[in-house]
Amino acid sequence: MKIKLTILSAFLLSVSGLQAQTDNGVMRLEEFAYPVKRNNLNIPNVNGFQVLKCDFHMHTVFTDGHVWPNVRVQEAWREGLDAISFTEHMEYNPHKDDVKVDHNRSHDLAVNLAKENNIVLVKGTEVTRQTPPGHFNALFIEDANTLVSDNDPKMDQEAIDRVYQQKAFIFWNHPGWQVNKIPGSYEWIDFVEKQYKDKKLHGIEVVNGLGFHKKALDWALDRNLTIIGNTDIHNLIANSYDIEREGVHRTMTLVMAKDRSAAGIREALDVGRTVAWSSNYLFGKEENVRDLMNACVSVSPAYFEKTNAKTKEVTKYYEVKNNSDLYFELELKTGKGTKKLVLYPESTQILTADAGQSVLSYDVVSTYIRSDKHLTFDINLK
Amino acid sequence: MKIKLTILSAFLLSVSGLQAQTDNGVMRLEEFAYPVKRNNLNIPNVNGFQVLKCDFHMHTVFTDGHVWPNVRVQEAWREGLDAISFTEHMEYNPHKDDVKVDHNRSHDLAVNLAKENNIVLVKGTEVTRQTPPGHFNALFIEDANTLVSDNDPKMDQEAIDRVYQQKAFIFWNHPGWQVNKIPGSYEWIDFVEKQYKDKKLHGIEVVNGLGFHKKALDWALDRNLTIIGNTDIHNLIANSYDIEREGVHRTMTLVMAKDRSAAGIREALDVGRTVAWSSNYLFGKEENVRDLMNACVSVSPAYFEKTNAKTKEVTKYYEVKNNSDLYFELELKTGKGTKKLVLYPESTQILTADAGQSVLSYDVVSTYIRSDKHLTFDINLK
Amino acid sequence: MKIKLTILSAFLLSVSGLQAQTDNGVMRLEEFAYPVKRNNLNIPNVNGFQVLKCDFHMHTVFTDGHVWPNVRVQEAWREGLDAISFTEHMEYNPHKDDVKVDHNRSHDLAVNLAKENNIVLVKGTEVTRQTPPGHFNALFIEDANTLVSDNDPKMDQEAIDRVYQQKAFIFWNHPGWQVNKIPGSYEWIDFVEKQYKDKKLHGIEVVNGLGFHKKALDWALDRNLTIIGNTDIHNLIANSYDIEREGVHRTMTLVMAKDRSAAGIREALDVGRTVAWSSNYLFGKEENVRDLMNACVSVSPAYFEKTNAKTKEVTKYYEVKNNSDLYFELELKTGKGTKKLVLYPESTQILTADAGQSVLSYDVVSTYIRSDKHLTFDINLK
Amino acid sequence: MKIKLTILSAFLLSVSGLQAQTDNGVMRLEEFAYPVKRNNLNIPNVNGFQVLKCDFHMHTVFTDGHVWPNVRVQEAWREGLDAISFTEHMEYNPHKDDVKVDHNRSHDLAVNLAKENNIVLVKGTEVTRQTPPGHFNALFIEDANTLVSDNDPKMDQEAIDRVYQQKAFIFWNHPGWQVNKIPGSYEWIDFVEKQYKDKKLHGIEVVNGLGFHKKALDWALDRNLTIIGNTDIHNLIANSYDIEREGVHRTMTLVMAKDRSAAGIREALDVGRTVAWSSNYLFGKEENVRDLMNACVSVSPAYFEKTNAKTKEVTKYYEVKNNSDLYFELELKTGKGTKKLVLYPESTQILTADAGQSVLSYDVVSTYIRSDKHLTFDINLK
Repeated sequence: MKIKLTILSAFLLSVSGLQAQTDNGVMRLEEFAYPVKRNNLNIPNVNGFQVLKCDFHMHTVFTDGHVWPNVRVQEAWREGLDAISFTEHMEYNPHKDDVKVDHNRSHDLAVNLAKENNIVLVKGTEVTRQTPPGHFNALFIEDANTLVSDNDPKMDQEAIDRVYQQKAFIFWNHPGWQVNKIPGSYEWIDFVEKQYKDKKLHGIEVVNGLGFHKKALDWALDRNLTIIGNTDIHNLIANSYDIEREGVHRTMTLVMAKDRSAAGIREALDVGRTVAWSSNYLFGKEENVRDLMNACVSVSPAYFEKTNAKTKEVTKYYEVKNNSDLYFELELKTGKGTKKLVLYPESTQILTADAGQSVLSYDVVSTYIRSDKHLTFDINLK
Repeated sequence: MKIKLTILSAFLLSVSGLQAQTDNGVMRLEEFAYPVKRNNLNIPNVNGFQVLKCDFHMHTVFTDGHVWPNVRVQEAWREGLDAISFTEHMEYNPHKDDVKVDHNRSHDLAVNLAKENNIVLVKGTEVTRQTPPGHFNALFIEDANTLVSDNDPKMDQEAIDRVYQQKAFIFWNHPGWQVNKIPGSYEWIDFVEKQYKDKKLHGIEVVNGLGFHKKALDWALDRNLTIIGNTDIHNLIANSYDIEREGVHRTMTLVMAKDRSAAGIREALDVGRTVAWSSNYLFGKEENVRDLMNACVSVSPAYFEKTNAKTKEVTKYYEVKNNSDLYFELELKTGKGTKKLVLYPESTQILTADAGQSVLSYDVVSTYIRSDKHLTFDINLK
Repeated sequence: MKIKLTILSAFLLSVSGLQAQTDNGVMRLEEFAYPVKRNNLNIPNVNGFQVLKCDFHMHTVFTDGHVWPNVRVQEAWREGLDAISFTEHMEYNPHKDDVKVDHNRSHDLAVNLAKENNIVLVKGTEVTRQTPPGHFNALFIEDANTLVSDNDPKMDQEAIDRVYQQKAFIFWNHPGWQVNKIPGSYEWIDFVEKQYKDKKLHGIEVVNGLGFHKKALDWALDRNLTIIGNTDIHNLIANSYDIEREGVHRTMTLVMAKDRSAAGIREALDVGRTVAWSSNYLFGKEENVRDLMNACVSVSPAYFEKTNAKTKEVTKYYEVKNNSDLYFELELKTGKGTKKLVLYPESTQILTADAGQSVLSYDVVSTYIRSDKHLTFDINLK
Repeated sequence: MKIKLTILSAFLLSVSGLQAQTDNGVMRLEEFAYPVKRNNLNIPNVNGFQVLKCDFHMHTVFTDGHVWPNVRVQEAWREGLDAISFTEHMEYNPHKDDVKVDHNRSHDLAVNLAKENNIVLVKGTEVTRQTPPGHFNALFIEDANTLVSDNDPKMDQEAIDRVYQQKAFIFWNHPGWQVNKIPGSYEWIDFVEKQYKDKKLHGIEVVNGLGFHKKALDWALDRNLTIIGNTDIHNLIANSYDIEREGVHRTMTLVMAKDRSAAGIREALDVGRTVAWSSNYLFGKEENVRDLMNACVSVSPAYFEKTNAKTKEVTKYYEVKNNSDLYFELELKTGKGTKKLVLYPESTQILTADAGQSVLSYDVVSTYIRSDKHLTFDINLK
């Protein structure tokens, strides 16, 4: 997935090129250069839907982030993402002495670069109210400069209403982020209930960075809200995630979309066809997680049988192949066979089972289909 | 491709497990353990053929190698190979004071392990004559103990005849290996010509380890012999190849086969449907290399157009995606567009072209379809 | 520590060299080659003693290992070890149908290679009795072929006596290895007590591979036996340890020796100047672990002071530098300062402390000076 | 050098911590987190001088860079640098519609963070005149807002004079950067000669990023100007340098200083005690490069002798140890011994020599002490 290779023509250039370099007196020492490429983040289509890799929560110097907007597009391109959204704070501008406040500006500056890189740039913002209720992201807005930037709690409803009027997709961010500091802040409070009832709340960010908000997952599942995972990155992705290590990726939302477009994403978000992915874990509605896993994992027919010389018991051998960059860790629940299967990204394991078995049932401990429940995955043996 | 991840349940085990560990007084420190898995070496099917990854030349302690036969199967499994062959020297047994000479033994010892790991183990041997003519590998033999082990040059023909009688697939190994030591050894000599004429020579090893035998490639192409690449490994693969570095693989023969079986391999070898792969390079018949590349590389329709404000010239943007673990490096020959494209394994690059272009023609400098010729690859723009 | 770099002269060779390569028709594709080098495993001297990296337990094809003896020397050289010992089983020869039984043979075959590589090769053996009492390693023996190879329990004492007569350094291997299978096998049984009383037991292997035998550590500490850690490797080091990942090393015994020689090692073993190192953990007598850590970790004088604008409290800043390839993880016990310090290999952390503090006291949770006790490490602030 | 390890206490926390996590409903998934640490960049002291790692050329969003100033301090800290300097363009402010122009601002914003991280932040600027003469960096300035920002060529001398009046250390940047675009721009022109004569030019940047300006090296050597290497980074270091690969570092100036302070750096720059380091290469005055290499490389006494059975010739064995993170590649010039020695960072090689040899003389092809000359390094054998 992430490959570090010297470019062959660097060798060739060092042959023919060295002459030219001698001519012009400047020699390139390319060996330590970072290879410019977009890493394929492989996930097969799911029921005909493309699986788009999306991060809907991030910041730039235009609010409290530490990079110019172009860096976010570059990070996304390199890491194989399909869509991102700048969600600058409406109510918080710590750089305002140096950077002119314009809530649309980071988006506008990056629009063309995103197009050139084939990255879908969703116009968004972060409605940054005091906690509780805390922060909400609004995607697919039209104009951030007409929204509420006053952080008086009396304006909370108005702040939501304004993004709602722009037909935004609205989700509640990191509901538990102040759990240790503000009592009562990690609860399904009346304000949130009201937005939900009024159809002004459409999703919940159950993973923010590397924090899994367990109660938030259950709230989303119980109310059929769309499940979201984002980085909320302020500094560099590479300073938060060990992304040069193989298999490591940023937190993101996997969106099963009809096509790779803003409209495709919106449709999928509206109907909740998402799975959040963070570290080695997947979080989502049971059906979505199962469909995703079914698309990624395949089991071969038995390719070998071994008979125990003493007991005459027959063991059959199967290959279980993970065709994706996702990670699945399985523990046997019922049946006689391999007790533990670790399906690392883009790899294969051998599964053995007693000859009589037709199904082995596993708990996929790297998935959460509820705060206290893993996906059950049945492997049918042929 | 190669992922190093801590197993999640190690965490879980450290919860529930620590109790047990306290009970039995032995604690596992798994963090530094090598992850046991088979890496998928991704290459899409080519014209309906599976692309099998094969290494047909290697040694164990049973001649002059440094490992027990099981190690070779383990290496192959981990690295994603489909088939290997032990090709112990018939005429050279430096360990004979310690290891009993039995030319079938390494194969026999590994047969069951290979079956359990779904690795096709092709029975082979290395007919190790003095140079010239040097060494020949014979695959699909029946019994190595009935072959010639006497290294008298007078027996050269007999040695070939015996493997031929076993219906072996025979190829000439590393033709240039003694070029600097034995004058005349790197030539298409009469003895070789005779085998070729008599249909007793079926292929040539044009890459041995990290050495590309350029003249041998042309000999193979001119005579329609099958093109082979192997490691000829004696010590550990990991001591010769930097295989833990991403994108690095051992030298091998890519066999485009009807199925993953010994018969499938034999058929493909017989008709020459192979490409040798070493370092970042591919070596083969033009048609085979082109078909392989066509299977791996896809070009999107134009997704963006940019008009130069001054010149009004329009540039179109395309994604060129490498869906494989192969590496392709392209340099523009004709047309107006991106001059250089490096398609790292499992990655994507942006290609730009003038709006009027319908085709860009590239030299694929990481391929050799002759000792002095790269594949030409046309990219059709939509 | 482990560096993967293309050799510069490969570039230069590709200039001048390509001509020569064209001449002889063989081209080298060096890019994927494993770099041949010995990695420095950095640990500063401790109280004037060199810290030798030793692995005193391993096997080759001459008993139940999977490699020829030279591989063990190569592995040791590359990984920066100073000393190894082949400890073939006296009583167990599963390869005997293929490999002639000679208990000295693996040592003898490797002696010269070890000398050329400046690796101290300690002559040893594994006295492989049934469990209990289980296995004992004997180092510095003279002739393994005169020892006991009959595995009748009645010969247990004779087996020990014979290695003792050769003035061996004797330690008990992996005492808990059969804890789950053989009740009573992980106890300080009478036979062991007798050897200890008779001065025929000099050390205990408290770490074997990635297994930490907790009770064994306490037994060793209570009786002032030398603490040992080994791999007991049978297959490849690279198949058990993820050694290409930075910071990863095999399990070993750190021997604080007067010089890098067999005699230096023997003296240090005899007096117990050792620490076992496995994964990120150190195991040993308190004094040894503390001396080792003191040699590796240094704390700068305060380089900065910051005054809290509100509280007027002053915080001082210090650098804590780990000058070694060891790993130390510290948790604050007493004092006001940084609560957690992770001293990764060859790295530095910032420590902050209240201005009034003169000492911060830490638990080094990556060390065990008893099965239930970490080293306490005081940082004196200047 | 760069270690990626899971923190042990993450395991421990997952035991005791999971309860707390259950309590507050937020679970941390730390496995993919980037480890926060400062990598030691090991270079031994040279003749009693500390070798400080310095990058004196970089940009932030305050001119045409892409990051907030704090990111530059973080990058420096992580990579083991000792000193950096923001050198914003005086005459070029492409972000001025969004970011208020203040030439001191990036420095001022980072001062405290640099102090906390023990990074020496040298106040600097880039005098960005049209080419030729091109750009000059001025270090140790007092106030950038009183300098020349008008880019009229008539002001070139005034621009230099103003930084000179602030007692700046002035060096010419990347002299060949426009060689292919502006004829005559890569010459020692009169303007530069005048500054040099008037002692207003003190150094030359002979390496900028991964470009080695060969003629510039000779100019510096001939006039005893200080030799400088910098990144001139605008985007992320990690987007230009493959820094997560072992052994890779950014381009920098190694300053042999009396202490780790601004004053120490200034003194060393004034007297020219520097070596530029880029990719695997060192560039500098012969004496400085030699002293640096002598500090890093040590040769053991002979530890083994081997006598050729036939010729009776005796070969002696030595260890050549590289105690640094630098890279040295040696090719034998005179003497009978190992022809090629690659001293990878923190590693050791075996050198063999005929018994009669007392000295082997090597070309260190990874060093440039002139555009066409490598350092000669004599190894004395004992």
